[in-house]
Amino acid sequence: MRFHRCRVSEVSYSFEPIGVVHSCFSEKFAIPRQPQLAPAATATLELFAPYNQAQALEGLEQVSHLWLLFVFHAADSGPKHLRVRPPRLGGNRRIGVFASRATHRPNPLGQSVVKLEGIVDGKLLLSGIDLLDGTPILDIKPYVPYADSLPEARNALAPAPPPPIKVEWSEAALQQARQHAERLHSDLVALIEQCLAQDPKPAYQQPEPSREYGVRFWDLNVRWHYPSPSCIRVLDVQPAHADS
Amino acid sequence: MRFHRCRVSEVSYSFEPIGVVHSCFSEKFAIPRQPQLAPAATATLELFAPYNQAQALEGLEQVSHLWLLFVFHAADSGPKHLRVRPPRLGGNRRIGVFASRATHRPNPLGQSVVKLEGIVDGKLLLSGIDLLDGTPILDIKPYVPYADSLPEARNALAPAPPPPIKVEWSEAALQQARQHAERLHSDLVALIEQCLAQDPKPAYQQPEPSREYGVRFWDLNVRWHYPSPSCIRVLDVQPAHADS
Repeated sequence: MRFHRCRVSEVSYSFEPIGVVHSCFSEKFAIPRQPQLAPAATATLELFAPYNQAQALEGLEQVSHLWLLFVFHAADSGPKHLRVRPPRLGGNRRIGVFASRATHRPNPLGQSVVKLEGIVDGKLLLSGIDLLDGTPILDIKPYVPYADSLPEARNALAPAPPPPIKVEWSEAALQQARQHAERLHSDLVALIEQCLAQDPKPAYQQPEPSREYGVRFWDLNVRWHYPSPSCIRVLDVQPAHADS
Repeated sequence: MRFHRCRVSEVSYSFEPIGVVHSCFSEKFAIPRQPQLAPAATATLELFAPYNQAQALEGLEQVSHLWLLFVFHAADSGPKHLRVRPPRLGGNRRIGVFASRATHRPNPLGQSVVKLEGIVDGKLLLSGIDLLDGTPILDIKPYVPYADSLPEARNALAPAPPPPIKVEWSEAALQQARQHAERLHSDLVALIEQCLAQDPKPAYQQPEPSREYGVRFWDLNVRWHYPSPSCIRVLDVQPAHADS
């Protein structure tokens, strides 16, 4: 068994994005904590030259899902910690950074499996995404079910998706969502329901019914409150101000 | 929907390895084309300071499998192509580089799921690996079965593992393998059988029974030939010369 006594950590590796994601998630808040939790979350992956040529994607139409390797470009650039407090564990229990998929990590590299809905004009149409708008993409790899799908794997820290909470609509908000859906080519009602059902607020926060929360999907501000701690009610869905 | 008109491809991102893999695969030839195909393939992941502290791994003992993000450090540094000829497709059919997991790609980034066998003295003991000895590791993420395991995914380019071919042993080779196994703490017989069963030679090559092939696992040279095109016979397992 050979051991490399010299540390390769003095080396660094440099990568250039091959493309960028244009997604429904205009801010980090309310992005599902894993991909696939919001099938209605869609994005377009725009490839940069020379990778925007059809040759680079040949055969990809035979593949249903892709891995994207990307940069957490909006992650906090402050000092890195060895332990993190994942929201999943209530936001107040610490675990090792390598036992978590937190965005704030030694190398801000992300890995996400997404569904490939189609390829149009050299752009990839994706769904089930958890990527912030503007995310730089470093690589695309086909999902290989026989190698990647390990139903026997165990992860006691994240054994199952968090149970969804109930999402209901004000009549006005539902109308607004339906109205903008067409323009955005996005199933906005499903998108909002799927993302809010994961309860974006910090798990340790007890919501007052009078407190309003908001997030931006596409170019829209979505506002909601908690009539009770286990229920979200969407209040309205309005175009964001140009300066927001 | 916001579009970023400026290309982020003028940007580049720099990453430093957090650790290095010491693996049974001393050369690229005969490495399984996906992880998990050779459960007897083992490695130790050595973390660099400050990540070699127990805190960074806290909670990881609750996880059975890990994703490693790594650099294909021994990949050909020649010009990048938009299409590649994966060995899986016989080595003579081209597909887009993003429809393949070939090592020679725009950014030489790899992603591999491995089994975590244990943590000893801050080192991770891994099995089912497909990583070359000396591979620089950029990130470790826990496998999350509910998010990563997609049995419904389809990949018509790689629908199933390649069918294994038969591996038989000369009496001498089997003795040698058993003898070195103890010293290396490696199930060498299984390792050799699992890796050779995937037929490492290029798929388009018709093997002559008189032609000998060789590969290095740990510090050993393993030699074999093909008595018939669908059968491998291991000839011997000898310590590699110090200068090889």
